[in-house]
Amino acid sequence: MAEVHTVRRARLRERCAAAGAAAALVTQPANVRYLTGCAPPGAALLVGPGAGDTLLHLRPPPDDSPRPADELRNVVLPSPDADAAVAAADLARQRRADALAVEEHHLTVTRHRALRSVAPGVRLTDLAGAVEQLRLIKDEHEIASLRIAAEISDQALGELLESILVGRTERHLALELERRLVDHGADGPAFSTCIGTGPHSGVARHVPTDRRVEEGDFLTVRLGACYHGYRCEVGRTFVIGSAPAAWQIELYDLVFAAQRAGREALAPGVACRDVDRATREPLHAAGHTEGLAPWTGHGVGLEIDEDPQLSPAAVGKLDACVPVTVEPGVHLPGRGGVRIDDTLVVRPVADGGPELLTITTKELLAL
Amino acid sequence: MAEVHTVRRARLRERCAAAGAAAALVTQPANVRYLTGCAPPGAALLVGPGAGDTLLHLRPPPDDSPRPADELRNVVLPSPDADAAVAAADLARQRRADALAVEEHHLTVTRHRALRSVAPGVRLTDLAGAVEQLRLIKDEHEIASLRIAAEISDQALGELLESILVGRTERHLALELERRLVDHGADGPAFSTCIGTGPHSGVARHVPTDRRVEEGDFLTVRLGACYHGYRCEVGRTFVIGSAPAAWQIELYDLVFAAQRAGREALAPGVACRDVDRATREPLHAAGHTEGLAPWTGHGVGLEIDEDPQLSPAAVGKLDACVPVTVEPGVHLPGRGGVRIDDTLVVRPVADGGPELLTITTKELLAL
Repeated sequence: MAEVHTVRRARLRERCAAAGAAAALVTQPANVRYLTGCAPPGAALLVGPGAGDTLLHLRPPPDDSPRPADELRNVVLPSPDADAAVAAADLARQRRADALAVEEHHLTVTRHRALRSVAPGVRLTDLAGAVEQLRLIKDEHEIASLRIAAEISDQALGELLESILVGRTERHLALELERRLVDHGADGPAFSTCIGTGPHSGVARHVPTDRRVEEGDFLTVRLGACYHGYRCEVGRTFVIGSAPAAWQIELYDLVFAAQRAGREALAPGVACRDVDRATREPLHAAGHTEGLAPWTGHGVGLEIDEDPQLSPAAVGKLDACVPVTVEPGVHLPGRGGVRIDDTLVVRPVADGGPELLTITTKELLAL
Repeated sequence: MAEVHTVRRARLRERCAAAGAAAALVTQPANVRYLTGCAPPGAALLVGPGAGDTLLHLRPPPDDSPRPADELRNVVLPSPDADAAVAAADLARQRRADALAVEEHHLTVTRHRALRSVAPGVRLTDLAGAVEQLRLIKDEHEIASLRIAAEISDQALGELLESILVGRTERHLALELERRLVDHGADGPAFSTCIGTGPHSGVARHVPTDRRVEEGDFLTVRLGACYHGYRCEVGRTFVIGSAPAAWQIELYDLVFAAQRAGREALAPGVACRDVDRATREPLHAAGHTEGLAPWTGHGVGLEIDEDPQLSPAAVGKLDACVPVTVEPGVHLPGRGGVRIDDTLVVRPVADGGPELLTITTKELLAL
């Protein structure tokens, strides 16, 4: 594993050198973790100048947490009130770096000013999304972690379906699912579990309330495990009671068809916006144009929402080994709605096409 | 309630005017909430120029969420991919603001640049911590929310103590406590619940592991409820089994004495660093100087860790109606330790002195 991170840092160093910066300062936590294998709170990674990389952090990591590889110098700052990024800029100055590429999309204006003042002779440039770009295509080790995260998510969801649901609140169901994720070995939930009942069902990012599950409700569940830092998501909609109403079956079939179209559109070389369009088209054709979410899917990895975006304005094409969600939904104000959400890995047809990680059934279950 | 937010915004407007900016752009979520009563994700508040204030957000709030008062103009941006801060800067430009004070400690360099480019004629100044300063002294309505948050925390903790603990993991206990917080009406946990058993006990910000509670362990619990946005914390240390060992009693009595000294030092006009010193002195006198946390308390409110800081380097004095924690701890590597943590409101002696919000007993309980 240590080698993986060394290789990743070497790739970043090449990019920086090509852009004229001998050193890079990485502060975005998921990026620090990607390049070192660990991300203590407030840590900063100085890549270069020269061969040596240094991880600066604020307190010694606990005994049982993952540690950075030996090639990486580890500096614990004397004061836990220190800013590791400022200390890293000072180190770059001592090592006579002429330019330092920093993550302007992560550093605040105030911190950036502090870097400038500690290293006035060092020209600060923008690293922009260079590390995020490296993170786009996952290696098989990363995909293995996502696969386990998906298994855990499916297990937790499966157990919920076997329990009595009527009368329980959205917030309780959400908390129970998060406990089950941890029971099955997750680091924790990948994001706040979303449970929508009745009129709240089908809302893209509904925050669970004290509304209780009732007979006849649609129930939308969206959850995901985080495993070894990798985050996935799965979303399903169920109907509560003996038999769904006609409008529920119709809406469910529509969203199911849209989600299948999106999944089937996933392939290396396909434009992200074309996947979005494939997902969106059946919904538009049925007259659902208002109130749709602005995306129908997105990348997952060390963050639950990362590149690529599957949206009408997205640029770029899919690559093999990029994990994404496909998650269309329709919400009818006052009545409720349907969302169906899977995590898949883009694979070429020769390898069997898109690999579905979240395998919970997508039949319309009446619970 | 609406009036409260209007008055708060008027106070901010005065401060900005005094600093030469006719308008302020507030993006830090707790600050937005303080000034409007709600904080939709990604929202930005434009205060001024002139009498009108505008809250810009990305999607319509759900039907049952708190809404900003009527005096406040509400703008839902057409695209949920938009940056509300950029839209607010554009609005300030349209209204011919000459200067706009922005939160440089919250805006990233990239967003700040986007503001500059959308409003090139508007001089951007630094609002710095002006809203955080306004938030320091709480009104009785805010303190009432904190009081309920504390009650909920005490209830959840009390129920845990009645259950069987031996054999359960830190992570499970943490999740159970968070569920109980919600059961009792919390919005959610105020922060990630911290459970440390045996050698992990007494660590300031321990992340729960799969270690199980064993006979003879110290068990450190730190939790807190969030209620109507207001966050409190309570921390206690217990011993597992029939009777504590001599070293455990000795260490407990020491930390208890330190925590009491800190509580008793709380009064309007007392320097923050003097409260820290009062708390720290008993620990130092007993030879514990290494490895102590750099703070012994901090303010709470809409954020779990806000000003004032109770630390050796803190500047400033306490005021009446400022809620703070007092939370000393000692951790002996390999053996464990003790932390005791209360939330209190600073009150003058005439009003009975500091008001203890978290009333769970601080006797050393053997569970």
